[in-house]
Order: sequence, then C-alpha cells, then structure tokens
Amino acid sequence: MSKQFKAYAATAKGEPLSPFEFDPGELRPEQVEVKVSHCGICHSDLSMIDNDWGFSAYPFVPGHEIVGTVVAAGDQVKRVKVGDRVGVGWYSGSCMACPQCLAGDHNLCTTAEQTMIGRHGGFADYVRANWEWATPIPAALDPVKVGPLFCGGITVFNPIIQCHVQPTDRVGVIGIGGLGHMALQFLSKWGCEVVAFTSSAAKRDEALKLGAHQTVNSKDSDEMAKLAGSLDFILVTANAPLDWPTILGALGPRGRLHFVGAVLEPVPVAAFSLIMGQKSVSGSPLGSPATTAKMLDFCARHEIAPIIEKFPMSKVNDALEHLRGGKARYRIVLENDIH
Amino acid sequence: MSKQFKAYAATAKGEPLSPFEFDPGELRPEQVEVKVSHCGICHSDLSMIDNDWGFSAYPFVPGHEIVGTVVAAGDQVKRVKVGDRVGVGWYSGSCMACPQCLAGDHNLCTTAEQTMIGRHGGFADYVRANWEWATPIPAALDPVKVGPLFCGGITVFNPIIQCHVQPTDRVGVIGIGGLGHMALQFLSKWGCEVVAFTSSAAKRDEALKLGAHQTVNSKDSDEMAKLAGSLDFILVTANAPLDWPTILGALGPRGRLHFVGAVLEPVPVAAFSLIMGQKSVSGSPLGSPATTAKMLDFCARHEIAPIIEKFPMSKVNDALEHLRGGKARYRIVLENDIH
Repeated sequence: MSKQFKAYAATAKGEPLSPFEFDPGELRPEQVEVKVSHCGICHSDLSMIDNDWGFSAYPFVPGHEIVGTVVAAGDQVKRVKVGDRVGVGWYSGSCMACPQCLAGDHNLCTTAEQTMIGRHGGFADYVRANWEWATPIPAALDPVKVGPLFCGGITVFNPIIQCHVQPTDRVGVIGIGGLGHMALQFLSKWGCEVVAFTSSAAKRDEALKLGAHQTVNSKDSDEMAKLAGSLDFILVTANAPLDWPTILGALGPRGRLHFVGAVLEPVPVAAFSLIMGQKSVSGSPLGSPATTAKMLDFCARHEIAPIIEKFPMSKVNDALEHLRGGKARYRIVLENDIH
Repeated sequence: MSKQFKAYAATAKGEPLSPFEFDPGELRPEQVEVKVSHCGICHSDLSMIDNDWGFSAYPFVPGHEIVGTVVAAGDQVKRVKVGDRVGVGWYSGSCMACPQCLAGDHNLCTTAEQTMIGRHGGFADYVRANWEWATPIPAALDPVKVGPLFCGGITVFNPIIQCHVQPTDRVGVIGIGGLGHMALQFLSKWGCEVVAFTSSAAKRDEALKLGAHQTVNSKDSDEMAKLAGSLDFILVTANAPLDWPTILGALGPRGRLHFVGAVLEPVPVAAFSLIMGQKSVSGSPLGSPATTAKMLDFCARHEIAPIIEKFPMSKVNDALEHLRGGKARYRIVLENDIH
C-alpha cells in the first residue's frame, strides 16, 4: 500500500478548501520528497482556485512557495540530500535537455512541470519536486519567512539579473504590494537609487522604510512631469492598466519598462517612443534554479526578507479570505499543522 | 564677403526643389567643411519636404546621406583633416559633454544638431558638420555607394550592436526595402540564419540573393504558424501596422522584436506575451560615431554595399518622384553636378 499525502483542495471553481488525501505514486528517480513546514500564499493561488486562467483542474491543491525538509530522494538526485532544508516554487521539474535547460534557463523550458498544474501543490504535508527545483536554503535565512521568496521574490529578483540592472541605475517600482515590497528591498540593497510609485498615502512611509529613496504618485501629473526622462529601469508589479505613455516618458535614454505583473489589457506602445531614446518594453517569468540560489545568498548577506503574516495551515480559508480582501501586509505564510 | 553655398531647397510644404543659395556663416572651430560628391535620398527627406512630422522650416534643403571631401577644418577639429573623404548622416553635431555623449552615445544626445533641421542639408555643393559626425570612409568602399550607409545603413546596423545579436541567432527582417535590403546583408555576413519577411513575390528571389536563407510571407498564416517560437530577433524596417501578436509569436524564448521603422499606430503589446518567454519589444535611432565607424569597417571586410540607382543632383526632382512612386531599387544616390 502506497503512502497518502494530506492536503487542502478546492473541489470546484471558487470553493473554499477542504481536507483531501491523495496517492502521490512512486517517487521518480530525480525527485525529492519534502516534508512541508511552511507555504506562502500567492495571488496566483487565488487565480487558480477561481480558474481565472481557464486551465485549473479540480480537486485543486494550491501552494507554490514551499519550505520544508527533504525526507526521501530518488537515486538520480543531485545537489540535495535527505535532511536538507529546501524551497520549491512555481516549477517542480524541467526536461534538462532542451536548449533552454542546457543554457541554464530551466524556467523557460517549454515542457517544465509546474508545482500545482497537472499535480498537487504545497498546501499539504508533503510535496515532491525534481532536485533542480528543490533549492537549498542558506542557514542564515529564517525558514518562516523564506517561502514567499520562491515565487514573489524570484519574480522581482530575476529581472535585476536578466535586465543587467546596475547599482548606478535610477530605478522605479510600480505597485507596492507582495512583489513590490520585495523589489524595493532588492533594488536598494543592489545599490540603486529607488523611486516607489504608489497612489496610496499609507504606503509612502512604508516604501521609504523598505529602501525607496523617493515616492511618486503615478496619478499626479505634476509629480510625473518632474520625473520625465530620469529613470533607467521601471519594474511593473501591478496588474492594473496605467497611463503607459507617461510612464514610458519617465524613462531616460536606453531606459527599460519591465513587466512581471500580467496586465491583461494590451499596453499600447508607440514605436517612435522606443526609437528616439533607444528604449525597450519587456517581461520575464520566475527565475532559473541558478538565479534562485543567487537570490537566497543575496538575501542572507543583506538581511532581506518579505514582511509576512502567519496563519496555521488548518486556517487556510481564513488566510485566503484575508488575501482576497486586499488586507495582506505584505505576504501570507501558512505554518503546517497537518502533520 | 562670405562664401555662398549652392543648394536645392523646397520653398514650401510639398513643393519641388529649386536652386537656392545661402550664406553658411563662420566655420565653427569644431566644424569641417565638406565638398559634397554624392548624397543619398532617404524616405525621411520626403517626409521633411512634406512636413509630415510638423517641424519642417522652409526654405528646406534635404540630404543627410552625404559623401564628400574635407576642404576646411576649424582649429578644434580632431580625427579628420583637409583632403579626407568623409560621410555625414542625420546628425551634424553633439554637445560632447552630457552623460550620453560621454558614454559614447552621441546619437542619444538630447541637444544633438541634426543635419537638415535648423540648418541646411546635403543637397548642396558644400555642407558642414562637427568633426565627430564626419566619419572617415575606408579606401576600400566605393564612394558612389557609401552615402546610404550613413542613414539607412546605420539605422539597421546599430541594433545588431545594441541588441547584442549573436552569429548563432536566428533572425527575421520585416520590410525588404531601402533599409531591409541592407539589414539582410549585414545579418547574413554577421553569421546569423536570416529569414526575410515579404509579401511581394518579386522580392523573394532578391532577398535570397542578398543573404536571406528563407523567405516568409507574413500575411500567410500557414507560413507564420511554422515559424512560431523560432526566432531570436526580428527587425522591423516597415512602417505599416502588421499582425503584431502573430509576429511576437514567431519569437522564441528571450526573443526581441525591434523597431527602426516608425510605425505610427501604437503596437498593442500584451504583458503576458512578454512575460512567458522573457521577450522584449524595443527600438533604436541611428548609431553613434563609434558604431558608424565599425559599420564601415564591417562593410569593407565583407563587401557590403547598398544597391543604388544614380541621378545627377540637378535632376533631384526626378529622383524624388521616383522614390515617391515606390520605384527605388533600393536606394537613390545623387551625383553632384552643381559645383
């Protein structure tokens, strides 16, 4: 008789989660089995519960900001061993053989396995992942807070690496929430001059504490006019449409507007506005295993951590309601009490 | 009594050019005076004659693909001397002191002097330019054909440098005209696998002769479907709106869609389409003096030249009508007969 995993699952679109058990099958040779100690909640967990993107399958077990300890390892596993503390994010496997994987871009593998798509996620007692996506967590990091780095954190750290952001750059962050509050910390510790865009007066002081040197209300045309032509890089973590021509205008020569928040309405880009100052508009998904490891080392050296609120995993529905209500400051972590 | 320059000028919007003389004033210390032997015609000369962009001033002397010999040099001139053959393009001066100039990006200087804006261009017997924009022409290049490299050529060569296009890349060129026919030569000699996008059957064979390995009809959905996810870089030299989502879909992971043709209608870009494959959309203007010199050396080593049609400068109106009629194959050069 094989082992059963205990989890929390949505049984239909938008339903509250309820206890759910399933047989995970055989451990694959390249997989580790992780005893989950903590799991962050990301807005995309809600999107998947609600089938916002149209590809959710039920019963659906959310969770992709997972922290735990390796309790079993297949015989092809490298780098990690039983007893290691690891984190698992959006991806749980990649083919290792396509041009992207071989180039170190496992996150761009078109057949990558995703932790909670076609399988079950981290709102559970145990979870499995291929070894390359089970990233060792440096001892200096608090395991309670580290989970959100594996989705929200890497989503905003990866562009700093991919876009070659320099410590001499003047950068902007749009949207000071779960992702943005980590981006402010990363970019200020990276050595940049950091401008936080927020229309919320309440978040202005917090943004300054998190490392922003200046805050700007993106809806105030006088403040935006002063910023014109001055930024090298703007990171968009918000999902809502904004006044894109004005925001592009805040970029200086060679400036780049980079999306990690999936703004659903197409952004109208005038080719001429890109040509004149040699500007670009780009986007990126979560980072590779190598970039994830770099991020964790950077967090350890600079004492970077998300600001979190804790809920026991058995209160997962309360936690989801808290997030749905826009009340999370800034990221929720579930502490496992279902072992 | 100061010298008079003889030129051809439009005296009002859209008018044919007519002989025009003007006093160029004192030669500035950093300027050279160039006796014009040849001048290319660019589509932007027509746009300026017609005041398409709203900032033309009349009388207007077009011409910014200039080849000639230095006949006088101010006492601050560096790098070039009397007797040297040089080319002058869109820019004729830059401040040399702003962060862009100091970084070698004189083409991004926000106060750069433009050859035919606020002064007179190269459809003339003589023209002046600051030394940094009077680029020496390697002896191996045919002076009759080199003019178009100084606007059309550098516009498509510069992105190869700026976007770090690699010889291992698979690239596409959209629009096989004055710019595109040079882009095909540059990219094939750069070592890339080159796909030419054209809906004109007549241009297919020409594109292959110019270095394309394959041609694709961008309006044929079957052909476009086969290309999906396969290109690293697409250069847009056309000015007309296209099916941008399909073209973005032709890019593979880390792919970039780059504009040098000023498509006037905004391009709708879905953030999600950039995020998933880490793609970007960008643009660039003409290149710097350093990049222009690199281009000329590259042309000399690889025997790259635009395909041109010649007109005497005294027949400039015939030449402009030829271009207006869409008949230029591929670039027109005026030979000076007004000395």
